[in-house]
Amino acid sequence: MRAGDLVTPALLADAAVLDRNVATMSAARPGPALRPHVKAFKCTPLAGLLADAGHHGFCCATVREVEGMAAAGLGDDLLLANEVVDPRATARLGALVAAGTARVTVAVDSPEAIDAAVAGGLREVLVDVDVGMPRCGCDPADAGRLADAARAAGLEVRGTMGYEGHLQHVVAATERTARTAKAMAVLTAAHGDVGGDVVSGGGTGTWDCNDVVTELQAGSFVLMDGDYARLGLPFDEGLVVLATAVSVRPGSHAALDAGLKALAMDSGGPTLVDDHDGAASVLFCSDEHTTVAGGQWRVGDRVGLRPDHIDPTMAKHEVLHLVDDATAGGDAEVVESWPIDLRGW
Amino acid sequence: MRAGDLVTPALLADAAVLDRNVATMSAARPGPALRPHVKAFKCTPLAGLLADAGHHGFCCATVREVEGMAAAGLGDDLLLANEVVDPRATARLGALVAAGTARVTVAVDSPEAIDAAVAGGLREVLVDVDVGMPRCGCDPADAGRLADAARAAGLEVRGTMGYEGHLQHVVAATERTARTAKAMAVLTAAHGDVGGDVVSGGGTGTWDCNDVVTELQAGSFVLMDGDYARLGLPFDEGLVVLATAVSVRPGSHAALDAGLKALAMDSGGPTLVDDHDGAASVLFCSDEHTTVAGGQWRVGDRVGLRPDHIDPTMAKHEVLHLVDDATAGGDAEVVESWPIDLRGW
Repeated sequence: MRAGDLVTPALLADAAVLDRNVATMSAARPGPALRPHVKAFKCTPLAGLLADAGHHGFCCATVREVEGMAAAGLGDDLLLANEVVDPRATARLGALVAAGTARVTVAVDSPEAIDAAVAGGLREVLVDVDVGMPRCGCDPADAGRLADAARAAGLEVRGTMGYEGHLQHVVAATERTARTAKAMAVLTAAHGDVGGDVVSGGGTGTWDCNDVVTELQAGSFVLMDGDYARLGLPFDEGLVVLATAVSVRPGSHAALDAGLKALAMDSGGPTLVDDHDGAASVLFCSDEHTTVAGGQWRVGDRVGLRPDHIDPTMAKHEVLHLVDDATAGGDAEVVESWPIDLRGW
Repeated sequence: MRAGDLVTPALLADAAVLDRNVATMSAARPGPALRPHVKAFKCTPLAGLLADAGHHGFCCATVREVEGMAAAGLGDDLLLANEVVDPRATARLGALVAAGTARVTVAVDSPEAIDAAVAGGLREVLVDVDVGMPRCGCDPADAGRLADAARAAGLEVRGTMGYEGHLQHVVAATERTARTAKAMAVLTAAHGDVGGDVVSGGGTGTWDCNDVVTELQAGSFVLMDGDYARLGLPFDEGLVVLATAVSVRPGSHAALDAGLKALAMDSGGPTLVDDHDGAASVLFCSDEHTTVAGGQWRVGDRVGLRPDHIDPTMAKHEVLHLVDDATAGGDAEVVESWPIDLRGW
């Protein structure tokens, strides 16, 4: 089957780019040194490809992701790198542990999160430390006390986690490196108070400058996006939303049938894979369309759009089609079609 | 069940606000004068409520929406207000017509769209006219010629369509009214060349100033959003994403467990339903979280976030929970839970 045979909008992944990106990351962060983050792609067959590359521990962001990974037989070592404070939600995780279908570790940064872990029947936690991004994570000064409280509650504290999310997209590598070192110094100090074998953190943007974490929580590198591409990392963009030109006004504009319901817009708009030798560009996106200006278009043309943010773009689609060449538009050969099966909550 | 019993993030709709908004619109645009646009909410039970209010013709934006509406028994008169140029897609629509499960009319703005309609076994079209928004719609000067071509190809031309999408969010009512009149003058002239009974267009923003269309294609009015709320229309915001505070740093910030995978960000960020007497506000959204600054927060607090754009927010969720009071946070009573069953393509 060709990509031209798919109903558009259709989400395509370049199989060769995917393989290359995984190989590049695996060479630098082999086996357990990489804990791939499934939130970036929400697709168990893609996670399976990473497991085949030697990475058997995974990060998840939602309970649904943990459940889906366990159901797919990828539950060797799942870290829910997020706080879950609802005992009904931790009970869903605890049920997986009790059934032996997954090893589940959760992040905790408060007494309430510890209580919820215990109430849900969970056994293992990481203490989540704020390393400078105003989101989750405890005051670093409280990390040791929280670890003690978790142990007193009967939990195994495997170590610490600290995510320098605010540094992932710092474009200048020297600044990114320097600030990451400072953030990780905070995590190292907190880890001294906490103990355990695991220091978890990092992402695609700090893949080569975070030398503190024992496991890197990267996910976007698999297929990248426009936002990460600006960093000049040795990973290539392989994700494309295939669209069809459904309306053309020669000399003015064309409307493609993939809009902001098919493409995440939080980090920026999409770019054209084929910009008609520099003549065409994206004018704006609306719910169901992307309007492009310039270039020569015919009704029915198939054209790829590169999204600026991989995670929420993946979450908008039901299927990811692996193709032999994501720049080939409708001529690409569809190698395999994978369900994006970890969506929702 | 209370909203506090739901796993968060959870999408809530205020049942009373929904009823009130529908009643307000129905009074002004009774029966066939309103063709509700299901793209805004993608939920057949909500469409059923509009049918109960006397509106039996609906607008759709995707083939999946048409199929879902037909399957739900709401196929009396479905307009796919979009160009479909892939004969495999028009064949899916034609199959509904042939089976007698739906009356389907499609928008056409090119010879290719006419060919695809014929090839798919469709029988009825509207000529889609560009009234000033650079997206779909033919050059107004070509409308009559396209209508002739459609008729020559054996299609019934029911009339014209022209969507003044670029005017829906013009805040000043006088400017919105004046520009809508100009855009609709273009449509009126084109309609003179096309013929037929139907003049379709308009939306929530031009609900009371578009006096040209015979049927208004409005959808957002049912539950509104932050972007439309800025217009001061007599429709109330009733859509809320319920979140839980999963991490709290007293005096600094709190992290809620609903981020940009649960809330559309293309028009702007969400706002807090309860802003702690003006003290709390949204700092930023990331994939899984919304970070709020100010206010007094406890871990486990349930709090509502109002999205800025209804259409893509609905498309991110599997279920819409009707509640008695969407401002009541976890205390709201869940009246009914509706599948958001028209997602995808």
